[in-house]
Amino acid sequence: MPRPIILGVVGDSAAGKTTLTRGLVRLLGEEHVTHVAADDYHRYDRKQRAERQITPLHPDCNYMDIMEQDFAHLREGRAVLKPVYQHKDGTFGAPVYVQPKQFTVIEGLLGYHTEALCDCFDVRVFLAPPEDLRRQWKVQRDCSRRGYSTDQVLEELDRREPDSEAFIRPQQRRADLVVSFQPGDRSDQAHLDAKIGLREGLTHPDLSPFVDDNGGLSLTERKHERSLWIPGDIDPARGAEIEEAIWDRMHFASHLRSERLGEFTVGTELHRSESLALAQVLILYHLATARAAVALGGEGSRTEHRRVPAAAAEQLSS
Amino acid sequence: MPRPIILGVVGDSAAGKTTLTRGLVRLLGEEHVTHVAADDYHRYDRKQRAERQITPLHPDCNYMDIMEQDFAHLREGRAVLKPVYQHKDGTFGAPVYVQPKQFTVIEGLLGYHTEALCDCFDVRVFLAPPEDLRRQWKVQRDCSRRGYSTDQVLEELDRREPDSEAFIRPQQRRADLVVSFQPGDRSDQAHLDAKIGLREGLTHPDLSPFVDDNGGLSLTERKHERSLWIPGDIDPARGAEIEEAIWDRMHFASHLRSERLGEFTVGTELHRSESLALAQVLILYHLATARAAVALGGEGSRTEHRRVPAAAAEQLSS
Repeated sequence: MPRPIILGVVGDSAAGKTTLTRGLVRLLGEEHVTHVAADDYHRYDRKQRAERQITPLHPDCNYMDIMEQDFAHLREGRAVLKPVYQHKDGTFGAPVYVQPKQFTVIEGLLGYHTEALCDCFDVRVFLAPPEDLRRQWKVQRDCSRRGYSTDQVLEELDRREPDSEAFIRPQQRRADLVVSFQPGDRSDQAHLDAKIGLREGLTHPDLSPFVDDNGGLSLTERKHERSLWIPGDIDPARGAEIEEAIWDRMHFASHLRSERLGEFTVGTELHRSESLALAQVLILYHLATARAAVALGGEGSRTEHRRVPAAAAEQLSS
Repeated sequence: MPRPIILGVVGDSAAGKTTLTRGLVRLLGEEHVTHVAADDYHRYDRKQRAERQITPLHPDCNYMDIMEQDFAHLREGRAVLKPVYQHKDGTFGAPVYVQPKQFTVIEGLLGYHTEALCDCFDVRVFLAPPEDLRRQWKVQRDCSRRGYSTDQVLEELDRREPDSEAFIRPQQRRADLVVSFQPGDRSDQAHLDAKIGLREGLTHPDLSPFVDDNGGLSLTERKHERSLWIPGDIDPARGAEIEEAIWDRMHFASHLRSERLGEFTVGTELHRSESLALAQVLILYHLATARAAVALGGEGSRTEHRRVPAAAAEQLSS
């Protein structure tokens, strides 16, 4: 079997990692996707973190070396015995045996902290919503699903800010796609604009035919990076056309077009966002392309050469 | 830091693994030795094994692939997150972070089951006491320390015999030293004879000057293997002379000569065995030699070339 394709979805707590990946997983088929949460690699349980006054965002609070080993094993198609961090009570359980399926999605806080980690991913997505929006999302989630009070969540956010700045946000320079959902003309969750930084490590589909000043896409070019802007209130028909064009370039994967992209929930309510759908189809494009390249005997779809040796991980100096 | 030296001590349950290694660990210094029990890599807990009617001796009952990964990491000096099997209640606990020290001793049932596992060890010892003696040892230990009845232990031994034959005993052909303690002229535990098969993967010290028909060593030669016989009632002065000669060949390690080798306990009573001491000093010789070779930039002290690639593990067909 060809090696699995590894997608990284990295970003701060409540940056939207699970929302972004959920649609992709449904489309690729649960049975073809292995899901790994890097939180499982915490070094300290909740009690120890409190005693040591360390946040889970700090590399010292995580087994970075074991992450490097395990992610490299997964990329080579080998199973790992993954540790288990239990969010419900903040302790560790017995590890579980995880076999990488065709696609493996790794979500986490520090996935791109070292070069060796970066080398494990075929596609590196970083989620960078504006801090105001992320705080709002974190309060929403942690109060409704993890049983905290608003004050507790806000206090925790403040406590974590130095580590967010030092360790989490600097990782975006190593991503292939930096996705920032943000309030635009309409501020409701279903109509957030999406700004997507497209880095040159991957060959992105050409979306310039869809650029227009009339509520369509815009593209700006800087050294090493193109920036794509998807208005939150883009006409759904226009959005569908763009999706269609991207699907056309992954004609070999047309059998995947069954589920609808762009769906998300707030509480138990189902919504749909055009900009989320477009971000997802772009990521899917890179996953399908990498899978096809590997299936044909290629190394993957990255344009740069892989660093050698992967193990000589240069620490990210923020 | 040069990579750690890895000693394998493999053999069936109650074959004397811990007794053999304890003296070595004391001599090398606890602070320089990492100890790994391969039992931690069981796939099923005690309840699951009973349901599945599988013994812990069967490769399917163990994460052989994870063992290969972890042991290879340890050999390269990398830490691993080791699973934890709890003998007291037969369940798994949270894993522990293990860093390999200068010497790493891996004890277990299936350590030489694949080529990839074998490649991890600098020195491979296999313990092969006669079955009668091993049964006696197992009853002794499991009744006194693990709370089983004699009948339970004997029944378990019978149940395990097919797997012992199929998977455990065949591994001895991959060992460098096959150590068999056995009753000789005197049958008490302190005066067991030791028969040691010396395989050509390592260069063993020349003990022929100590061969004599008058209660000293004997050596027999077969293709690929010399067999050393140490009588259990060897004159302690003669034993000390032989030890001295081996120490002389590891003059660079003379600072280690503080603890006494050959000690063992039955219950809480301390005994000493001359043949155990000689077996231990022989193993120590190989550990010290490997350490010295690696410290000087060598690969290790094996005479054969390492198989490439280590990962292409040929299954041991028994």
